[in-house]
Amino acid sequence: MNKSTTEIKIRGYHLDAYQHVNNARYLELLEEARWCHYEDYPPAYFQEKGWGFIIVNININFKGSAVLGDTLVIHSELVKIGNTSLTIHQEAFIKGSERKSIEADITFVMMDLRTQKLLPIEGELKSLLTRTAKV
Amino acid sequence: MNKSTTEIKIRGYHLDAYQHVNNARYLELLEEARWCHYEDYPPAYFQEKGWGFIIVNININFKGSAVLGDTLVIHSELVKIGNTSLTIHQEAFIKGSERKSIEADITFVMMDLRTQKLLPIEGELKSLLTRTAKV
Amino acid sequence: MNKSTTEIKIRGYHLDAYQHVNNARYLELLEEARWCHYEDYPPAYFQEKGWGFIIVNININFKGSAVLGDTLVIHSELVKIGNTSLTIHQEAFIKGSERKSIEADITFVMMDLRTQKLLPIEGELKSLLTRTAKV
Amino acid sequence: MNKSTTEIKIRGYHLDAYQHVNNARYLELLEEARWCHYEDYPPAYFQEKGWGFIIVNININFKGSAVLGDTLVIHSELVKIGNTSLTIHQEAFIKGSERKSIEADITFVMMDLRTQKLLPIEGELKSLLTRTAKV
Repeated sequence: MNKSTTEIKIRGYHLDAYQHVNNARYLELLEEARWCHYEDYPPAYFQEKGWGFIIVNININFKGSAVLGDTLVIHSELVKIGNTSLTIHQEAFIKGSERKSIEADITFVMMDLRTQKLLPIEGELKSLLTRTAKV
Repeated sequence: MNKSTTEIKIRGYHLDAYQHVNNARYLELLEEARWCHYEDYPPAYFQEKGWGFIIVNININFKGSAVLGDTLVIHSELVKIGNTSLTIHQEAFIKGSERKSIEADITFVMMDLRTQKLLPIEGELKSLLTRTAKV
Repeated sequence: MNKSTTEIKIRGYHLDAYQHVNNARYLELLEEARWCHYEDYPPAYFQEKGWGFIIVNININFKGSAVLGDTLVIHSELVKIGNTSLTIHQEAFIKGSERKSIEADITFVMMDLRTQKLLPIEGELKSLLTRTAKV
Repeated sequence: MNKSTTEIKIRGYHLDAYQHVNNARYLELLEEARWCHYEDYPPAYFQEKGWGFIIVNININFKGSAVLGDTLVIHSELVKIGNTSLTIHQEAFIKGSERKSIEADITFVMMDLRTQKLLPIEGELKSLLTRTAKV
């Protein structure tokens, strides 16, 4: 339930001077996969609540660069829940091969955007983040 | 007074699969030059007023692509003021050569971001946009 | 046959300070739609031939900004073929409404990337670009 | 000698839906600072040698987000040299305050882009990377 898979095709605009996906662009692709991971919950739902995802740490290993024509298969999984922080583990593979492209841990907190205060990960918020409840 | 010049060095992350500056990235570089053009007026000033720059048309000719190691010299000039719209003409050259890289006309309106209504280009707003007045 | 439709969901990273899709980002979304338009022809095919798409003009009207949670429906159509240049017309609508977000004409030439010479739009190249032939 | 400082003004296009600098954009700003760090060595020099910087790990802490109108002061320092890998430590502060925005360790290897083999960090290459030699 806490796992999801997103596929993204690598285009010319994803590449940089080395003809592979740029390091900053990888973070956009991982963000895209996280939006997909929580696709069941529309942005409007979070906006009404005033809940925001604020990243506190990203630790990313680059194992092998994706190039033009590759499709990245990105697996996202919520692997840790603390009192106020969570960690999503993401791995991307080159489709049709066994090659791992990157692996990353994204640690974030949930913030009340109106008060700028941290939210405890409990109740409805916890259910949503662990995707055990539907809106 | 309505002319300004901005220099931007081309880096590896500006390039795409063709090893030249990507078309979308050019628009970011032109936006950077426009922020520089109105540098005298801090964002906070516009935010307090609730004034926003809303682009309605971009017409851009790509004459010759910039590559890694080039420096773009971007000239920006307010060339047209209507009742509610303005046009900034921008040209970028490869530094140290006579080669023109792009030329573009950016037409925009000013909007009151709180009411989402167009602002007439007059008085203080006009003075600011034509840079004949200082904050 | 020369028409295609691509849907793209608007995410947090597509937005800018005005909370709508940034003008430069729109060009990336249009580029994504053009990659989809020619999806039948894998990048490797063009790379082997040494054929590159080089944009010479973009003329884009911004009619209404897409915001977080919107899905853009982008229609792409090859509307003009000259001896050496082509024009793709693209329009994007906010899904589920009649609202047009942008409309753009993208004019490009085909270049032999090895010789940096323009390619005449004829024969196999023309068939591919008009999508009347399959690889 | 191995330290450098780069200032970057935060513009509207750097922000995302939360009105702060997007996590992926931070990596571009850090990459910009690393290009500045090695500014003495023109890209052409590395291109002739066929030497490429390939990132293997990024570990980045987000301490406080930069917003529109902020200027980031980015300090870059080569802090570790191994046989085949190096680590640059980067910290960014909000100019005019004591607030730290991010801190990151960027670990990379040097690759011979023609043979795709790792380069030992020694001799001329080591002198360049530690900036103890001039081209």
